[in-house]
Amino acid sequence: MQKILILGAGQSSTALINYFLDHSEKKQWSVTVGDYNEALARDKVNGRAQAIFFDVNDPESLQKHLPGNALVISMLPVKFHPVIAEFCVEAGIHLATASYVSTEMKALHDRAKEKGAILLNECGLDPGLDHMGAMRILDKLREKGVELKTFESFAGGLLAPGTDEGNPWEYKFTWNPRNVVLAGQGIVKFIQEGKYKYIPYHKLFRRIEMIHIPGYGYFEGYANRDSLKYLDLYNLREVDTIYRGTLRRPGFCRTWDVFVQLGATDDTYEMEGVSSMTHRDFINSFMYYNPHDSVELKLAHYMHLELDGPEMHRLKWSGIFDITPVGLEKGTPAQILEHILKKKWTLRKEDRDMIVMWNKFEYLESGQPREIHATMIAKGTDHTDTAMSKTVGLPLALAASLILDGKIKETGVIIPTLKAIYEPVLKALETLGFDIIEEQIK
Amino acid sequence: MQKILILGAGQSSTALINYFLDHSEKKQWSVTVGDYNEALARDKVNGRAQAIFFDVNDPESLQKHLPGNALVISMLPVKFHPVIAEFCVEAGIHLATASYVSTEMKALHDRAKEKGAILLNECGLDPGLDHMGAMRILDKLREKGVELKTFESFAGGLLAPGTDEGNPWEYKFTWNPRNVVLAGQGIVKFIQEGKYKYIPYHKLFRRIEMIHIPGYGYFEGYANRDSLKYLDLYNLREVDTIYRGTLRRPGFCRTWDVFVQLGATDDTYEMEGVSSMTHRDFINSFMYYNPHDSVELKLAHYMHLELDGPEMHRLKWSGIFDITPVGLEKGTPAQILEHILKKKWTLRKEDRDMIVMWNKFEYLESGQPREIHATMIAKGTDHTDTAMSKTVGLPLALAASLILDGKIKETGVIIPTLKAIYEPVLKALETLGFDIIEEQIK
Repeated sequence: MQKILILGAGQSSTALINYFLDHSEKKQWSVTVGDYNEALARDKVNGRAQAIFFDVNDPESLQKHLPGNALVISMLPVKFHPVIAEFCVEAGIHLATASYVSTEMKALHDRAKEKGAILLNECGLDPGLDHMGAMRILDKLREKGVELKTFESFAGGLLAPGTDEGNPWEYKFTWNPRNVVLAGQGIVKFIQEGKYKYIPYHKLFRRIEMIHIPGYGYFEGYANRDSLKYLDLYNLREVDTIYRGTLRRPGFCRTWDVFVQLGATDDTYEMEGVSSMTHRDFINSFMYYNPHDSVELKLAHYMHLELDGPEMHRLKWSGIFDITPVGLEKGTPAQILEHILKKKWTLRKEDRDMIVMWNKFEYLESGQPREIHATMIAKGTDHTDTAMSKTVGLPLALAASLILDGKIKETGVIIPTLKAIYEPVLKALETLGFDIIEEQIK
Repeated sequence: MQKILILGAGQSSTALINYFLDHSEKKQWSVTVGDYNEALARDKVNGRAQAIFFDVNDPESLQKHLPGNALVISMLPVKFHPVIAEFCVEAGIHLATASYVSTEMKALHDRAKEKGAILLNECGLDPGLDHMGAMRILDKLREKGVELKTFESFAGGLLAPGTDEGNPWEYKFTWNPRNVVLAGQGIVKFIQEGKYKYIPYHKLFRRIEMIHIPGYGYFEGYANRDSLKYLDLYNLREVDTIYRGTLRRPGFCRTWDVFVQLGATDDTYEMEGVSSMTHRDFINSFMYYNPHDSVELKLAHYMHLELDGPEMHRLKWSGIFDITPVGLEKGTPAQILEHILKKKWTLRKEDRDMIVMWNKFEYLESGQPREIHATMIAKGTDHTDTAMSKTVGLPLALAASLILDGKIKETGVIIPTLKAIYEPVLKALETLGFDIIEEQIK
């Protein structure tokens, strides 16, 4: 009987925990779910596994619950991973996470190899499924000996068509709202036709690409941080164009850019007088002073928006001009904006989310230009059994069970660009209804 | 005979060092100038004082040269002040700098008081002269019992009229070019008519105020970082409006904003391929890819500029579209931009700089609205004996000599908002030709 410890029982762990509960009998797994909120863990396992109180900041908690496990899966925030990884490496326990490989994680590579421990990271949706979908095609193309020219990869967590009609953003929070508000901060780097390109945060949402996915309509994509690191990660040194991005529905970016331009997504300082602040005060504090002009007109003028245009419509719908108390005692602009948007952007019970992943590969085969598009669409069932939870949790669960079955021979810090991971995981995902559709365009 | 050690012999120390050389005989001062570049120190003292090699990173250097001094004046970069201050406090030596009080400096206050040491900071131009000019008027107004409503304070290092005619920016670097390129980064906070206002960096240069100074024409002012901290510093809790800013000539800010919008002032990452980069490549790397469109047209479109307008004229004059190698091996965007601009913005021998300080005070006296403007203009002699060097160095030299004469009774961390400092320093500056003209407007 293999012991498995899952840390973190929040929303994004639902599908992951259910996978382990569903397979524990057949696989002879003894599953424990730990969370700082023990009731939440108990709720999630629903009597089908052990639920425990776990405090990552308390060394005794680690000492008590980690030893003896064959595998630990951490769904905790990324900042908590180093201490867990450190412990796992020392004890020779495998660890799996959906988070990006941090510097601290990377530094454990050699010691983990010595101890025979696997530190699997970036094994959720994005990062995770994006690696797997891309590598499966890239490896096939490389076997064919083609000349790769372009690699583009987009993903987005959105609303399923028909959900929350009348929401002019066609968007709600389907994962950590804080990350949505802060998305894109820092510098964006990519390569286009052999030229290095850089976009600062304050221009990011005005440098979008339109993408059409048959059956699903148009999406707009804005660039993700540093696409250059994928040159090495995917062994793509030969391409002329590499670009990774996030998908939203048309009109989203131009409107979100208003918050960026105002400075309303800034997370570096605390605002004054938050306890008595209304939504309207919040927006007004980023604009010039005038005792007579309306906040609406000042904003429209400052941001070059039509008063009756779709951007102003979205902004008004969000309630940002309302004389409604924010309802926080203190906060940075980003925290306050998140709090205001949550009032409209929180999933209701009947809301269904949708994950869209879309990759484009351009290459020369025998001198002829060829093009492949690869698309994955996943839809949620309701506000807890979300597409996000499934596409984050299932790849991690499937890869973790490969580790438990001894199918992964690599040790140390790994990500699912390895064929030994992506091939069986993608195959298993297909049987669960998550297909990546590959289409030869040219 | 009092021993004095001046650390740092760079451009901004010229007037300071000369002041001490000119007064050492009469005052019975034994002056030493230390620099990591000993030749520079020797050059500056020109045989009239001792010049030494000084390495702030070497504890032996401190141990060898600091003890025995009555006063140390540090013109080194602000990051080096804590180690010097630490040593001075321990040895009971007074210290004077032109830098902002850092957290580390502040932490030394109580120990310095115990040891009877003065740690005088913010005693150059800005911060420095700005404190003194403002406090002299504020203290006078407070004695009168008026009700203060508005405090605005602007300063700028510019070119004297008639200098470098044909330079459409009417600007060159007259102090640390790096600081000019990075100016305004971070959040700007101020209060207008009782409302807290915030401007993010990427909007800063589009939120300017026009200021007219009789005899000198128009200037534009953009806001400085955190004006709120001056509420306490100047004991101004009652005002409705507080705003501090930097002065430039009209048109500068709109054009500088182009660099900000491009991301060309970003100092957070190193660019790729710098060694083979031209000015034109640099600018192009921030814009969308197109093999046919000119960089000029792409920029004009991206930034909503007229092709024949004054902004494009300034940008072309700066050489940023030239197919000229940058001439660096590596660098951040900010470092590369600084390097390109230095080619046009370095003072020539005959160039004369100009310092402009302008304050506005609005208040109610017996219920009647009143207004005072205070202006100081200083002009440089040539490219070494600059107005910047004089207005930074002389306030510091004059305040330091007050310390040496035992005229300052306060110990610990102080700034020249104290009457015991600003009154004699401003009086002495007047005799040297640096007048603050106070004008009752209403």
